[in-house]
Amino acid sequence: MPRFFIENANEKEIVITGENAHHIGRSLRMRVGDKLTLCCEGVDYDCVITRFTDSEVFCSVVGTAPCESEPKTRLTLFQALPKGDKAELIVQKAVELGAGEVVFVMTERCVSRPDEKSFSKRLARLQKISLEAAKQCGRGAVPKISGLISVSELLEGLPRFDKALMCYEKGGSALSAAGVEAGQSIALFIGSEGGFEEKEAAAFEGAGGELIGLGKRILRCETAPIAAISIIMSLAGEME
Amino acid sequence: MPRFFIENANEKEIVITGENAHHIGRSLRMRVGDKLTLCCEGVDYDCVITRFTDSEVFCSVVGTAPCESEPKTRLTLFQALPKGDKAELIVQKAVELGAGEVVFVMTERCVSRPDEKSFSKRLARLQKISLEAAKQCGRGAVPKISGLISVSELLEGLPRFDKALMCYEKGGSALSAAGVEAGQSIALFIGSEGGFEEKEAAAFEGAGGELIGLGKRILRCETAPIAAISIIMSLAGEME
Repeated sequence: MPRFFIENANEKEIVITGENAHHIGRSLRMRVGDKLTLCCEGVDYDCVITRFTDSEVFCSVVGTAPCESEPKTRLTLFQALPKGDKAELIVQKAVELGAGEVVFVMTERCVSRPDEKSFSKRLARLQKISLEAAKQCGRGAVPKISGLISVSELLEGLPRFDKALMCYEKGGSALSAAGVEAGQSIALFIGSEGGFEEKEAAAFEGAGGELIGLGKRILRCETAPIAAISIIMSLAGEME
Repeated sequence: MPRFFIENANEKEIVITGENAHHIGRSLRMRVGDKLTLCCEGVDYDCVITRFTDSEVFCSVVGTAPCESEPKTRLTLFQALPKGDKAELIVQKAVELGAGEVVFVMTERCVSRPDEKSFSKRLARLQKISLEAAKQCGRGAVPKISGLISVSELLEGLPRFDKALMCYEKGGSALSAAGVEAGQSIALFIGSEGGFEEKEAAAFEGAGGELIGLGKRILRCETAPIAAISIIMSLAGEME
């Protein structure tokens, strides 16, 4: 059944507007009586189309259920901004693998240091990549992409997570020994090309986080988040 | 210490030629007495430079040790050939994450079906990507990239592996329940964009392989191998 992400929903009648309405009426040429699924914040609304106007599609809700593909484990990837277009690859893969949110962070060793204006343009593109990846892999919500924040802003926010893990190139515990469990909220912090400064690692530990090693091979800064999210989601039982 | 991959080694004196010799003498401007590590088939040869000629570098071996970053678990990725340049991304990431070999396979649903000649050109490029990735991440051996083979050739080769796993989009056991252990030889079979035909999955099971599900989100054909190798290597204790 076709799936569409919407921003607001209720359990009775939902009116679809904008791009989605255009896509449903013009591109897919759907008709009154056709069924579709509307996804809002991890809930699937099974609907039947009841009426069209020029720019709206009226849907009657026939059933709701939590989206099965949406992980119960809420992983936020805090990613030090990498060079080039690696951020795009990281967002796409993080969304496919079940991350709930991606926040870009400016660390000491970030080579790419865009100003706020040019990064906000890029953020719009990254958010679109998140939407496309969420559609393609069947997520029940579109992960929010945000940033840039500073390391101290990140550290201030850590108490709201059950677990905070930093992949540190100088080593740490194995992810398999980090006590990851289903349903936790997990902050995962990954460095840019140059990794982390020692003082950043110490500050992360000081704020209650744990340092993690990803093994003896040196992973690129776009490989580390993909590998770490895969392993965390497997440990949390979200890859079965 | 600089590291170079060589094809033949012994425990006394090693003569470096070709591109490596040029790189050592001209680009790095190394001198007699300088130390370097030569890597051959998972063994590190710690050497001192004793003599240069125009095209050779003579090295005296002062110590040998198994390369620490080389996984004891021997994973061969059998990857159905994807479209576009995804094969390049898959090879780079598989090498970083510790795969021992990548073999491209022609399955029913492969959209890209190059002839032997054009694929052999591409294979040379993929082998170069393997070499660069192995250097960058500190591997002790350069994973061999080969193919294209047919599904029946793959099935014939399965008995030489301790474990054979196929990631099947219609589901299967969790990787975490597949009994992966350190030191095993593992065949991992991943589909192309369209996944696998049911008869391919049945034939794989018939040949002693196991079907694996990677969870409820639909992973792209380049995401699946990266995620699966990460999880297998973590289960085998190779990511700590």
